[in-house]
Amino acid sequence: MSIGNKSLITIDDLSNEEIEAIFSLADEMSSGGEDYLSLCRGKIMATLFFEPSTRTRMSFEAAMQRLGGSVISAVDINSTSLSKGESIADMARVVGSYTDIIVIRHPWEGAAKLVAEYAGVPVINAGDGSHEHPTQTLCDLYTLKKEKGAIRGLKIALLGDLKYGRTVHSLTYALARFGAIILFRHSPGLEMPKHVLRRLSMECEGMLKRYEDLNQVTQKKLFPLDAIYITPHSPHQLAMMTDISIQIELKKGVDAIYVTRLQKERLGLTAEEQELKKDYPAVDKKFLKEKEFKRALVMHPLPRIDELARELDTDPRSMYFKQAALGVPVRMALIAFLLGAKKVETSGKDDYFVPRMVYPTYKRGFGVKCPNPKCVTVHEAQFIVPEFKIVNRQPLTLRCAYCEQETYPKYIASSEWHDGTLESKRYHNANSHWLQKIKPENLIIFGSESDAQAQGFKPSKYATPEEKG
Amino acid sequence: MSIGNKSLITIDDLSNEEIEAIFSLADEMSSGGEDYLSLCRGKIMATLFFEPSTRTRMSFEAAMQRLGGSVISAVDINSTSLSKGESIADMARVVGSYTDIIVIRHPWEGAAKLVAEYAGVPVINAGDGSHEHPTQTLCDLYTLKKEKGAIRGLKIALLGDLKYGRTVHSLTYALARFGAIILFRHSPGLEMPKHVLRRLSMECEGMLKRYEDLNQVTQKKLFPLDAIYITPHSPHQLAMMTDISIQIELKKGVDAIYVTRLQKERLGLTAEEQELKKDYPAVDKKFLKEKEFKRALVMHPLPRIDELARELDTDPRSMYFKQAALGVPVRMALIAFLLGAKKVETSGKDDYFVPRMVYPTYKRGFGVKCPNPKCVTVHEAQFIVPEFKIVNRQPLTLRCAYCEQETYPKYIASSEWHDGTLESKRYHNANSHWLQKIKPENLIIFGSESDAQAQGFKPSKYATPEEKG
Amino acid sequence: MSIGNKSLITIDDLSNEEIEAIFSLADEMSSGGEDYLSLCRGKIMATLFFEPSTRTRMSFEAAMQRLGGSVISAVDINSTSLSKGESIADMARVVGSYTDIIVIRHPWEGAAKLVAEYAGVPVINAGDGSHEHPTQTLCDLYTLKKEKGAIRGLKIALLGDLKYGRTVHSLTYALARFGAIILFRHSPGLEMPKHVLRRLSMECEGMLKRYEDLNQVTQKKLFPLDAIYITPHSPHQLAMMTDISIQIELKKGVDAIYVTRLQKERLGLTAEEQELKKDYPAVDKKFLKEKEFKRALVMHPLPRIDELARELDTDPRSMYFKQAALGVPVRMALIAFLLGAKKVETSGKDDYFVPRMVYPTYKRGFGVKCPNPKCVTVHEAQFIVPEFKIVNRQPLTLRCAYCEQETYPKYIASSEWHDGTLESKRYHNANSHWLQKIKPENLIIFGSESDAQAQGFKPSKYATPEEKG
Repeated sequence: MSIGNKSLITIDDLSNEEIEAIFSLADEMSSGGEDYLSLCRGKIMATLFFEPSTRTRMSFEAAMQRLGGSVISAVDINSTSLSKGESIADMARVVGSYTDIIVIRHPWEGAAKLVAEYAGVPVINAGDGSHEHPTQTLCDLYTLKKEKGAIRGLKIALLGDLKYGRTVHSLTYALARFGAIILFRHSPGLEMPKHVLRRLSMECEGMLKRYEDLNQVTQKKLFPLDAIYITPHSPHQLAMMTDISIQIELKKGVDAIYVTRLQKERLGLTAEEQELKKDYPAVDKKFLKEKEFKRALVMHPLPRIDELARELDTDPRSMYFKQAALGVPVRMALIAFLLGAKKVETSGKDDYFVPRMVYPTYKRGFGVKCPNPKCVTVHEAQFIVPEFKIVNRQPLTLRCAYCEQETYPKYIASSEWHDGTLESKRYHNANSHWLQKIKPENLIIFGSESDAQAQGFKPSKYATPEEKG
Repeated sequence: MSIGNKSLITIDDLSNEEIEAIFSLADEMSSGGEDYLSLCRGKIMATLFFEPSTRTRMSFEAAMQRLGGSVISAVDINSTSLSKGESIADMARVVGSYTDIIVIRHPWEGAAKLVAEYAGVPVINAGDGSHEHPTQTLCDLYTLKKEKGAIRGLKIALLGDLKYGRTVHSLTYALARFGAIILFRHSPGLEMPKHVLRRLSMECEGMLKRYEDLNQVTQKKLFPLDAIYITPHSPHQLAMMTDISIQIELKKGVDAIYVTRLQKERLGLTAEEQELKKDYPAVDKKFLKEKEFKRALVMHPLPRIDELARELDTDPRSMYFKQAALGVPVRMALIAFLLGAKKVETSGKDDYFVPRMVYPTYKRGFGVKCPNPKCVTVHEAQFIVPEFKIVNRQPLTLRCAYCEQETYPKYIASSEWHDGTLESKRYHNANSHWLQKIKPENLIIFGSESDAQAQGFKPSKYATPEEKG
Repeated sequence: MSIGNKSLITIDDLSNEEIEAIFSLADEMSSGGEDYLSLCRGKIMATLFFEPSTRTRMSFEAAMQRLGGSVISAVDINSTSLSKGESIADMARVVGSYTDIIVIRHPWEGAAKLVAEYAGVPVINAGDGSHEHPTQTLCDLYTLKKEKGAIRGLKIALLGDLKYGRTVHSLTYALARFGAIILFRHSPGLEMPKHVLRRLSMECEGMLKRYEDLNQVTQKKLFPLDAIYITPHSPHQLAMMTDISIQIELKKGVDAIYVTRLQKERLGLTAEEQELKKDYPAVDKKFLKEKEFKRALVMHPLPRIDELARELDTDPRSMYFKQAALGVPVRMALIAFLLGAKKVETSGKDDYFVPRMVYPTYKRGFGVKCPNPKCVTVHEAQFIVPEFKIVNRQPLTLRCAYCEQETYPKYIASSEWHDGTLESKRYHNANSHWLQKIKPENLIIFGSESDAQAQGFKPSKYATPEEKG
């Protein structure tokens, strides 16, 4: 991507090397040695917040102003022109013509990607539904880097709501990319979603171990864990570790525990919520007394509710306010980087600790659509041609290019019928041998039989009728 | 008006020459050759938005910041101090003492004029109810000028909601002033209001032709039209045109079509609305295939809903995003002009293409009041002495100086009774011969008999009782 | 307090000398002779408004921008992260790490003090419930100073809502400190609260006179008064005045009348409110015709409703719009002072006209709590150890260090039981002789018997059971 019009939609938009470069810049900027007020002089940032978030918005606005730029802001945009029926694609195009960079938070998953496609200026995703919040991840990584020197090999325990907390999913991928060992300890009913775990295994090539499998003795010494994600097996030295060595490693203690709050606004205000809340972990002085946590940083994306005791605020291991404070220099560095205001030297070679996956793309004006009701492709269908990455073939698994939710379409066909007769417009089961036979450029994927039939296709003998649910 | 404390309330506040000067300045500013960040350094703009409008507000704020000025903003002001019962006149005075220029949007018609009277600093009307939105008109004219070289003689078709769309009324007067030919094509039930047509005829001295009157053959070639407004008959060469020549002229095609959206928020959410919506025009590729539209710019004030097909977005004739983008340099130029930050040379002579009308004024502390329930004079009666222009005498027609809505008061009297006895306090029908007899400085006008009687007047024999409705 | 991290929570946070220094700076800044745009260049102000107040917020933001600083703003914060259950203490810490100075308005009384304790940057109270609004007081005093040369010895009449109007309480203390004579004329049912009067008497050592006690003749000449507060008896020459001389003095007329609006939002929308409203005073031309008001400035904090007639707007005595306008230079001077951007020379000696009281402090993690349901200590109990000033011993009277509301706790005990047996954990009546016997450092205060018993205390024979209410 050419610097000067690069967007940050997911943490994957930045290579490890770019992230490290942004951190160096942030170090420089927070050292206070120099005045950066002329760096973005005359540049305008728009902050478009379709969901309220005082903290995140203010952090971006302060960062832009510390660079000498200015801000125009639209908060709580629900009673504005958008209620006149305007699309966010149109809004992106207009606001992009007024400003130099756009920061957007929106409840629809994938919304930031759509805005980036239309704005014509760099776009920063400040949270799109439950999808991503990549600058939070940058702050988290930057805090770890600053406190522990490097991220590789750190043992990071993730606690609490691992299901809905968007920050924790991004963080997990990023930690894996940088070679950290991740320990999962979810609150009852709020486990890490399967698709996140699968992605970790498939793309980051790490090993996921149920903690119950480990040596019983070790188990008692460490705080209760659900699973351990051992990131990379090569070239990292941990690769040589057997399970036994992991247990020894873990007994030395974790480097950080990352606590998330219960995402109340993503749950209904129901009995179920009350139940989840009751069992929610609370980290306090007693919890931290265990020797595993002697040198563990306590991290949290804030705002906290009851999951972090106030008594920890003066504990030197408590990092949560520092995380927030570091948000300003990190965002300053990011803005300067995206605007090309500060040259950043990178080798350009892929420096992922784990190899970056390249998946084939499926993109057609008809056929399968993303089934996630919060996906931006559902809400702005007029502006978007659905696009997917084919992340698995057995079973056929598509990942939406916008919300990144995965779907398992049931039927396929070939576009070679173009040259044939209507008779050849047949669809087959996705798990039939036809998936291998159809050339990638001819592949058509349908989410349902009715989708296929709407396009004039008929079932082949390799098409089993859908089960009625 | 002295530059440095001039306001823009209606497009009539600027002469054609001033508009052209602003456009030249906008050209200069959008050329990017120079840095304008010192032009308004230290100046503060207040944006007071009593109705939401992210787009318009952001355009103004970006313009001010591109000039190096800063902005303080109050959006969606309904839960603020105004709900404590404060008048907008008081607010204008206070905010005027804090800032250097005020931009206001308000649902009451004429509100911006009231603010300008009290603020003590330049005020820009960013939309006052259904009355005016003059900077939108400036953007529209500027786009035409930039694309077509000049506005004089252009044939502009206005499509859609010609009744409620405030932008289209201002635009109509402005196009007439600059000597364009205007073609009306309203959506069913949403025709151009009579008072706009009358004003065009009387003040701009153009000719309004029902399209049905024209040659049948021509009619079939051009897209269905309701009426054509042929602007000026002198000195413009079109003046020599007979109806036949107009038809020839029109067959050459229109220069721009200006599409408006259905002003849903001005309608009730009723069956009627659904009806209006059903028949609303949609401009798409098919529509534009007609040869009349070969070189027609497609314009729209945005946001659009369904009246402009997305497929046009890549058509080179589509101007709507360009219109929005040009809003920034136009507003930069306007702000610099109103603040006196940039000297603008104008001859000062009236350069209207059509002669500017000067009407006598009627202004008294009692008697006739503006009957428009959305007029600011109704809501802030304590601060405003009603003021009207007498735009016609047969029938007696007053145009409110604030909302510009017209009213037809029924009764008149003379203030010469001051020197006489109560007996002489008589009121007469407005359409009686007394209207000619009473000296203008003595004229008293009443909206109703009860108004007159409340002031101690009695009916003369020239006063017919009001019909009870 | 060290300049550079000083906050303004109540007007008492500034000495008279500092206030005078701020006024000199404001004079300098409003003279327009110099450009102050570099004074706070690169500094960021956060305006956090948990209650709407366009006027106050804009005044602060304009002031910061006139100093070359920038602003990040969060208005009407109720649907934001705070609704996720976040404490304002946490928010203060985070926003303090983003910005250089915080301006806060919040409905909880004492909220600004809490924010100042956690923010780590200077905090300005822009109104905390009915407690304080010190910058309004600064504007009021500055207007008096500018118009009358000095505040000492001025006769200021306070009219209207003296009960709920927060501005008027702060103003009263400040006027007393500067040696003005204050005349009270409350609207029926809205008298000055007892605790304000008691504080005036006890801390400012002035004399409060019921107006009815004064000479009957005088009474008729002056507009109806409830009470007169004669500020200081020493070293001011008025100290020598007998009641007779006061009457003579008053007949010479008042220097200013300060009108407040009815604080509707602090009342229920009830019949009672309608009643209060009916009798509310309205200052108009007729009112001001009395010779006592010949040179009286008319002051009002704005927004006004009906209590100030529009006809006064052009009267040279009317100061209310000037008060508002002077808010910008006063706030500029204050911000520059608090940020240490402008050195201010003060002798450092206490220059109160009346001696400043120093009260003993009571602060314990248990026992008496502030009973004011709007006090921040009630809402953020996790973050605050209750703290009180012991302002009286007979009856025992505590003033909350946050909301400054007074409370009269009923029971006391001694912490010397620590060294004794449980038998010695006894509580006594607050008005028993034990209050004198217990050493200040050992004093424990309970609001109720149940409070005491919850801590394991038992009634002594000096403890009368609470009356059941």
